[in-house]
Amino acid sequence: MTQALQLAQQAGQLGEVPVGAVVVVGGEVVGRGYNRREVDSDPLSHAELKAIAEASQKLKSWRLSEATLYVTLEPCTMCAGALIQARLGRLVFGAKDPKAGAVGSLYNLLKDDRLNHEVEVTSGVLEQECGKILKDFFVALRGRKKADR
Amino acid sequence: MTQALQLAQQAGQLGEVPVGAVVVVGGEVVGRGYNRREVDSDPLSHAELKAIAEASQKLKSWRLSEATLYVTLEPCTMCAGALIQARLGRLVFGAKDPKAGAVGSLYNLLKDDRLNHEVEVTSGVLEQECGKILKDFFVALRGRKKADR
Repeated sequence: MTQALQLAQQAGQLGEVPVGAVVVVGGEVVGRGYNRREVDSDPLSHAELKAIAEASQKLKSWRLSEATLYVTLEPCTMCAGALIQARLGRLVFGAKDPKAGAVGSLYNLLKDDRLNHEVEVTSGVLEQECGKILKDFFVALRGRKKADR
Repeated sequence: MTQALQLAQQAGQLGEVPVGAVVVVGGEVVGRGYNRREVDSDPLSHAELKAIAEASQKLKSWRLSEATLYVTLEPCTMCAGALIQARLGRLVFGAKDPKAGAVGSLYNLLKDDRLNHEVEVTSGVLEQECGKILKDFFVALRGRKKADR
């Protein structure tokens, strides 16, 4: 999660909402990602999708059932759905997202036995740090917007 | 939807589950995609995500609020979530997906007023044709599996 936090920091430095993710298999990091929606002009450029795409390319497989994804923020519906598509083994996330989270907040997509895959979930890891980087980003953003008026 | 069906056919010819999608803005096709999960070894290679990525690159924007996405099959949770992330204007789909559909079947993600975007939805367009191409694909697949035994 420390590595995911460092990636989130990179996103923040680009002016992106600071979220970072890593995919780990057998103790080795096989995928890294951070939010790049604005710089890529791509609505799919969330940290999780970037990390999953890199891991799949590295492992030459769309099945990541041996993998754990660490991400600083609770995944949205798109990213939670992607973890199901990837048959991910385990998800570890930091801060909750009460407005858009799909892993306990608004939905619980990874624990739906109607779908063909469920994912083991651990939440609240480095929750304070993962939340703080987001909070600091939005405080600074509001400060800049105020100064621009 | 006829173009989406042709793209689905291309997927089927590669041995992929035949699903196709196009993104249209002002009468012009700006994104095309078909399912390439196996050939790309990528769990994110669904028709809708491919079409959205192409459209965003072409329009140099992650906001597709003027766009309509046509897809032969009801989107899954990942793809429905992606339509929200892209602030898509309108979705038109063909066949329902009772096992994994997130636009009316298992979930109704595009009509959730807790999320920051809702999408206009039209379903059942060329439903028979969109369903038939999938049904034919799975019948042929089962036939081949039987012959291999």
